[in-house]
This record gives sequence, structure tokens and C-alpha cells, in this order.
Amino acid sequence: MRDAYHEELDSIGYKLVEMTRLVRSAMARATTALLDADVRLAEEVISGDKLVNKLDLEIEETVFDLMARQQPVAGDLRTLITSLRMSADLERMGDLAAHLAKTARRRHPESCVPAELQAIVLEMGQIAERLVAKAGSVIASQDVAMGLELEGDDDAMDRLHRKLFDLLLSPKWTHGVEKAVDITLAGRYFERFADHAVHVAGDVVYLVTGQRPEDIIDEIA
Amino acid sequence: MRDAYHEELDSIGYKLVEMTRLVRSAMARATTALLDADVRLAEEVISGDKLVNKLDLEIEETVFDLMARQQPVAGDLRTLITSLRMSADLERMGDLAAHLAKTARRRHPESCVPAELQAIVLEMGQIAERLVAKAGSVIASQDVAMGLELEGDDDAMDRLHRKLFDLLLSPKWTHGVEKAVDITLAGRYFERFADHAVHVAGDVVYLVTGQRPEDIIDEIA
Repeated sequence: MRDAYHEELDSIGYKLVEMTRLVRSAMARATTALLDADVRLAEEVISGDKLVNKLDLEIEETVFDLMARQQPVAGDLRTLITSLRMSADLERMGDLAAHLAKTARRRHPESCVPAELQAIVLEMGQIAERLVAKAGSVIASQDVAMGLELEGDDDAMDRLHRKLFDLLLSPKWTHGVEKAVDITLAGRYFERFADHAVHVAGDVVYLVTGQRPEDIIDEIA
Repeated sequence: MRDAYHEELDSIGYKLVEMTRLVRSAMARATTALLDADVRLAEEVISGDKLVNKLDLEIEETVFDLMARQQPVAGDLRTLITSLRMSADLERMGDLAAHLAKTARRRHPESCVPAELQAIVLEMGQIAERLVAKAGSVIASQDVAMGLELEGDDDAMDRLHRKLFDLLLSPKWTHGVEKAVDITLAGRYFERFADHAVHVAGDVVYLVTGQRPEDIIDEIA
């Protein structure tokens, strides 16, 4: 049996996993909204972000409350502080999905993604979604090996991000400045979203092992 | 006389102020590097970011060390945790200044800022610089009134950011897609830099008053 204190610690973990689920769903909808110029989906993402923000605030309150009342020992303290950072990363990921949705809404009824970029934008959205799903599994399972995979997954995002710029800046680009600006920002949102997912998983690795993922990867290599 | 514990707490404050100074200087140089296509200044910003990262890590180590050894009470605990967040914001501001410098370096020997945008880019750089200088003063002085000013200063940045997009997307834009992409990213970097400075000052306001700046401003209004 667990006492109230440990139940509250557990509740933070559940809420973080719930945030990854909300943010994953927001990313899926935002990507589809971009590709289909679907303003209804875009609105869902934008209004749904409130729930992500609410969970972030709840986690922050619980953490401060536990710290004030319980004087947690070093290990729990580290967990609590790291939870704040993971929650802040996930809250930011919700913002980035909402930024994507706003980009889709701004150009409605047109799509801001030209046909020849649909495949690459779709792939960026899918990688972003997989990264946050994996981050959620890593929080739930505390699986270090899976946590270390995210750095490699993120390399795929970085490659796509560079390819996107190559396409934008090629002499073959015929879609003008407005679409180039939209795609530049969207590419940046996808890439930052992925970075935050990597941080979240990296924080779990750090909590379990006491080492940062990049240090562990250096040792293995 | 202060004991070793309080000296360490103070040292975190000094380091945060030092980070604001480094990041302000990086922003000044990055803006000039963009406007003058000065690759030497750009390199200084890029290599100088290491020092900002080093201070961030030092603050993190001191905080975890103090927490583990001292079991700080609620008030000090809140200060320590908030210091971690301020340090992370400042570290990110260093990254954003370095991103601006890399944009300048990528287009060297050309400037990526067309003549008619020089004034607006200069102004965005100056506001960014003032915001972080003010954040540094707010950390050093714990001046709540000054801390509350940053929200208003940031509105000026948001207005310039919108104006920049209006210029990029106007039919009069004749500089092609490559420069539009550069300016889109640069605009985003300035705007995010300013947001982080507002957060840093807001964290000080929160530590001193127990309230978030937006709540205080709501009450006054």
C-alpha cells in the first residue's frame, strides 16, 4: 500500500503521460489540418491546448505543495524538479501544435502546403507524433533503452528539416513568398516539437541512471 | 556575515545576472552581424555561447548540490527551483542569439537584411537587448515595478514582428524566397528571445510577490 505522499508523486507521472497523449493527438490533428486545410481540426487543436496548460499548472501546484509540506529527500526532490521541466516541455509542445494549427487556419480555405511538399510535411508530422508517443511510453515504463532511441529518431527530423529548406530555396520553387514563409515557420515548429520530446525522454533517462543520454551514448560509442 | 549556504545562494544570483550580460552582448553582436554581414562578429557570438551554457550547468549543479545537502525550507526551495528555470531561459536566449549569428554567417558576404528592413531589424535587436538588460537589473534589484514593465516592452516587439511579416508578404517584396526565409527565421528568433526575457523578469516578480505578472496587471487594470 502506498501513502498519500507517494500517491501524489504517482499522480504527477500519470498527468505527464496524459500530457504526452494530448500533445500527440494535437500534433496528429495539426498535421492533418495543415495538409487538408481543415479549419475544424485546426480549431480543435487551438482550443484543446487549454487542457494541456491546465495539466501543466496542476503539476506545478502539486510539486510546490509536496515540497512545502513534505521536505522530500534528495531522490524525490530530483524527481519533482525534473517533473516540472518535463511538464514545461510538454506545455510548449502543445503551443507548437497550436502554432501549426493557426498556420493552417490563417491560409484556409487554401492549403499552405504545396503538393510536392505534402509527403515531407506528413513525414515530419508522423515523426513528431512518434517521438512524443515514445516519450510517453518512456515516462510510463522508465525504459532507458527506449529513452536513448529518441536522439536517433530526432536525427531523421533534422534531415527532413534540412531537405525542406533545400526545396524552399531551390530555383524550382514556384509558390512565392507567402507559402515559403508558412513552410519555414511550420518546419521550425515541427523541429522544436521534436527537440522537446527528446528532452522529455532524456529527463527520464537522467532520473533513472543519473546520466544524460548524450553522455551514455558517448560511452557506448 | 553570511554563512556558506547563503553565499552559495547569492552566487546563483550573480551568475544569473552575468548570464543576462553575456546574452545581451551576444544579441548586440548578432544584430550587428546580421546588418553588416560581419562574419567575425557572428563567429564571436557562436563561440561565446559556450560560456553561457557553462554558467547554466554550474547553476544547475549548485542548485542540486544545495538541495541534497541542505534540505532548504519552502522559500529557499522556491528560489532555487525558479533559478533553474531562469537559467534555462537565459541559456535558450544564448542559443537564439547564436541562431541569428549563424543566419548572418550563412549568407556572408551578402547581408540577409534588405535595405528597407534594416531599420526594423535594428529596432527588434535593440528591444531584445533592452529586455534582457532590464531582466538583469530586475534580478539584481528585485524591483517588481521594473519587472512588470517588460510585458509592455514585449508588446513593442510583437508589433514589429507583425510589421516584418506584413513587409515580407506585401506585393512590393522583391528579394525572393531565400531572403524571405532568412528574415522569417530571424524574426522568430528575436521574438522568442524577447519572450524568454519576459519570463525571466516574471519569475523574479513571482518570487518577490508570490503572484504572476499577468495576475498583478489584471488586478491593477
